[in-house]
Amino acid sequence: MPDSAVLLIDCPDRRGLVARVSSVLYEQGANILHADQHRDEELGLFFMRVEWALHVSSGNGAAFDLAAFRSAFTPLAAELEMNWSLTSSAQRPRVALFCSRYLHCMADLLHRWYTGELHCEIPLIVSNHRDVEPLAAFYGISFEYVPVTIASRDEAEAHELDLLALNAIELVVLARYMQVLSPRFVAHYPSGIINVHHSFLPAFTGARPYHAAHSRGVKLIGATSHYVTEVLDDGPIIEQDVARISHREQVEDLVAKGRDLERVVLSRGVKWHLERRILRYGNKTVVFD
Amino acid sequence: MPDSAVLLIDCPDRRGLVARVSSVLYEQGANILHADQHRDEELGLFFMRVEWALHVSSGNGAAFDLAAFRSAFTPLAAELEMNWSLTSSAQRPRVALFCSRYLHCMADLLHRWYTGELHCEIPLIVSNHRDVEPLAAFYGISFEYVPVTIASRDEAEAHELDLLALNAIELVVLARYMQVLSPRFVAHYPSGIINVHHSFLPAFTGARPYHAAHSRGVKLIGATSHYVTEVLDDGPIIEQDVARISHREQVEDLVAKGRDLERVVLSRGVKWHLERRILRYGNKTVVFD
Amino acid sequence: MPDSAVLLIDCPDRRGLVARVSSVLYEQGANILHADQHRDEELGLFFMRVEWALHVSSGNGAAFDLAAFRSAFTPLAAELEMNWSLTSSAQRPRVALFCSRYLHCMADLLHRWYTGELHCEIPLIVSNHRDVEPLAAFYGISFEYVPVTIASRDEAEAHELDLLALNAIELVVLARYMQVLSPRFVAHYPSGIINVHHSFLPAFTGARPYHAAHSRGVKLIGATSHYVTEVLDDGPIIEQDVARISHREQVEDLVAKGRDLERVVLSRGVKWHLERRILRYGNKTVVFD
Amino acid sequence: MPDSAVLLIDCPDRRGLVARVSSVLYEQGANILHADQHRDEELGLFFMRVEWALHVSSGNGAAFDLAAFRSAFTPLAAELEMNWSLTSSAQRPRVALFCSRYLHCMADLLHRWYTGELHCEIPLIVSNHRDVEPLAAFYGISFEYVPVTIASRDEAEAHELDLLALNAIELVVLARYMQVLSPRFVAHYPSGIINVHHSFLPAFTGARPYHAAHSRGVKLIGATSHYVTEVLDDGPIIEQDVARISHREQVEDLVAKGRDLERVVLSRGVKWHLERRILRYGNKTVVFD
Repeated sequence: MPDSAVLLIDCPDRRGLVARVSSVLYEQGANILHADQHRDEELGLFFMRVEWALHVSSGNGAAFDLAAFRSAFTPLAAELEMNWSLTSSAQRPRVALFCSRYLHCMADLLHRWYTGELHCEIPLIVSNHRDVEPLAAFYGISFEYVPVTIASRDEAEAHELDLLALNAIELVVLARYMQVLSPRFVAHYPSGIINVHHSFLPAFTGARPYHAAHSRGVKLIGATSHYVTEVLDDGPIIEQDVARISHREQVEDLVAKGRDLERVVLSRGVKWHLERRILRYGNKTVVFD
Repeated sequence: MPDSAVLLIDCPDRRGLVARVSSVLYEQGANILHADQHRDEELGLFFMRVEWALHVSSGNGAAFDLAAFRSAFTPLAAELEMNWSLTSSAQRPRVALFCSRYLHCMADLLHRWYTGELHCEIPLIVSNHRDVEPLAAFYGISFEYVPVTIASRDEAEAHELDLLALNAIELVVLARYMQVLSPRFVAHYPSGIINVHHSFLPAFTGARPYHAAHSRGVKLIGATSHYVTEVLDDGPIIEQDVARISHREQVEDLVAKGRDLERVVLSRGVKWHLERRILRYGNKTVVFD
Repeated sequence: MPDSAVLLIDCPDRRGLVARVSSVLYEQGANILHADQHRDEELGLFFMRVEWALHVSSGNGAAFDLAAFRSAFTPLAAELEMNWSLTSSAQRPRVALFCSRYLHCMADLLHRWYTGELHCEIPLIVSNHRDVEPLAAFYGISFEYVPVTIASRDEAEAHELDLLALNAIELVVLARYMQVLSPRFVAHYPSGIINVHHSFLPAFTGARPYHAAHSRGVKLIGATSHYVTEVLDDGPIIEQDVARISHREQVEDLVAKGRDLERVVLSRGVKWHLERRILRYGNKTVVFD
Repeated sequence: MPDSAVLLIDCPDRRGLVARVSSVLYEQGANILHADQHRDEELGLFFMRVEWALHVSSGNGAAFDLAAFRSAFTPLAAELEMNWSLTSSAQRPRVALFCSRYLHCMADLLHRWYTGELHCEIPLIVSNHRDVEPLAAFYGISFEYVPVTIASRDEAEAHELDLLALNAIELVVLARYMQVLSPRFVAHYPSGIINVHHSFLPAFTGARPYHAAHSRGVKLIGATSHYVTEVLDDGPIIEQDVARISHREQVEDLVAKGRDLERVVLSRGVKWHLERRILRYGNKTVVFD
């Protein structure tokens, strides 16, 4: 996969947006690979994602001039009141993984990263338990053990924030990390913490969702990946999936079946975030496919 | 499909239950078609469903003697503290269908009934609107128009209960009937009212669940068929299903997609009830497949 | 839903296509509701679907001038070697439904049409059996009984083609029509015959696919809607879906479960065709969502 | 999970089978945890799986006497012409994993085994490439590198069979092993080789199924786990699953999405085999849930 640039836009909707954005791209010589847009009619908002090649695959091989594009695009973006970001796949985002004792999501993410499915750097793994240490060592990633008690949470979080800053982390992934993060911590990464919750949100928020699902007698269980906000299990949903269960299955069977759901929804959420496919707005996400 | 008998049992779990029940069936000459059992270990309960042929397909063609079986089984059932029911497929349950203005579930159930997929009689359709009248006429089913206002609910329900009694109805199916039934009404059919709710319960109980789902930004929508209890949208769940949605879909798209889910979960729930596949216990169901 | 126009394009891929098309739309004052595009990199093809409002919802309410747009767009389309079509939702496509004895797809399509879910006219129902006649009468649609034998096929098809011509039919939907159409018939509607096949194509082509699925011991059954071509069950696939089965299910259970799949994949295929969401190329489809 | 015994039976169907089997279990004092049975009416066959506890959880804790049960059951089994097996969970089956260069299934199986989800020993990993070596070392499993060429296949297989015999292997799992095994090899493990094929069988047998699926334009891709027989991709199917794809996805996207399907269907197949849930008959499986 050759290097590419991604432009993400959200702005008030008005006529001619696609024409004006695509004209600038055309004039700058962009060879568009994918483009998608969306309108939220209720809110009058427009969203767009464009991806184009940074090197022409054939011919003289001249590279696309990102700086020139940025200069040409900035006044248009200002005129149209855009929130926008321009990223190059040449820069791989730096990600930290947090977990507690359950390692199925962690093992899954690390294997996907190792085989190139997740386009990022993973310089840091943090846990309040030591179980993940051998796995971190196997993949050559720094492991930091940060135990947390109710009394020590503030101190622990301060230490974690230092570690994240030191490693220039852009995205924190909570791969079954069983500690609730403080609003203060969340505020440091306003759009950069992805969590997996082991239920089909908004059903069964909080602790022990598989027990709650079993007790309610549902016929499907689910898992959800979402951005973390100050309100527990209430952030913008990125992905959800479900599996059928029967009366024969006890809570431990739900837990086992749920692990496969958790792996899938979390890894998809992380992958889409890294590929700049997700736009947050209000408490929702647009996920361009 | 030849006539068959179904025996449904729930009782305290103890050793030897299957041996003792199947020995009686063997001694009485039952030719078993399907048998299934389930233990709820937490509650110490045992559930069983056995279905056997009422006529031997070959040989002298002697019919199975249901009365003799009942006599032989009664003392065993008493000794083992069983709740049990014995039904013959020769008796088709009598069902009433209730609806309001949306007719997709109604049209679906009627077509399935007409083609023999639902093994029952449908002598009565009740609605607080007249939209369903032509459909009822097409299928030759009595239609009763019972308008309901807040002021007239008690009177309307009394009239409906009269109609149900007059038609010897055993099962009431709420096929998108938009009135909340009173506890008094529900108490007349303690295990005989099936409803479809247009969400993945327990998420989005109450009114306008598709609006709530759209507002929360979920990535899957669902529908649920369940037995009606005194508490709204809280009865034992029979069946659930979900469909994937994207940011492109507005509330009206969710409503349209949801109709297909509602049809499927309601018709399955009704079919399984009619085939005596469902055992209720606590606020759950065992559905034998 | 207010009236809208849909522009469908396929052409050789080149830079600037989106910019040029959207500029014409902008200049002509189009208020775009949805736009989507796709590139097939292997084949070097570009596909685009744009939908815009024909009446401005607020303000002076001036209608969009489709004829003026057509004039402005034609030279661009010629220059860029486009295949293109421009349709207005004010013109509802005319559809004929064919069936044999199984009526579940027919009943489903007719109910969806009646409630406005399918945006078309249905002036004609054709069958080689009389079973569908009451349903046709209920919905007020002309029914034509055209029996077919091996000897009479040519004559029967000639009669059917006359009926289709007489009714100005644009789309033929085979809703479990159990006769194989001749290449001559198919050639009259090169992109206008949709069929449902009761398997997950390309597995189990031909007759009795549920028997074949049961015999092979698959764990999921499927259904497929597709455009009809000269080669049986080989045309471009529009939609597919599957359902899980178990060893407990006999062929007749597969048939019953399959009916729900057939209804869903066929109705989606027809709906998407009517909404001009489908572009055929080679033996495939692009379905814009 | 305490130790348990599993009895698997298949035999000609006749009346009273459940009564007679469960009576012996009752007389021997078995505390049944799960029991399930199935009849294939076409073939006149009966299948049964019973699982019971080997230690009573409360009271004097006397162990169930498996040898006494075997003695009591043997004459009944002979009389009723049963094929049967009796296994104790105290003996963990010995499994060998084969792979080539793709390691996603391997990494997944190893993690599941490590966390106790797969109830077996894994003394041996075999590959015709060295890629898996670090993973084998991490989990402390012997790795054997056995390169294969067309010329050397016989010799390589002879070496592999020696390794399997030396390690007393009962089950061979082909976790994306890209070599076709000879009939001679397969004959050594007539019911003991599980493979994953990356398509929804019987569609797209043979090489490069994702390319074939892309070329045919299907809307869902699948994966299948099955027992290996002499005929390639034709053995009894254990489990299948599918995922939705769109026109936007290229072959490499299908490959990536398919990896998640392959992991799930293979790990389920292996788990069910280890839990003695699968009965093979003809070219099919009964999978008791």
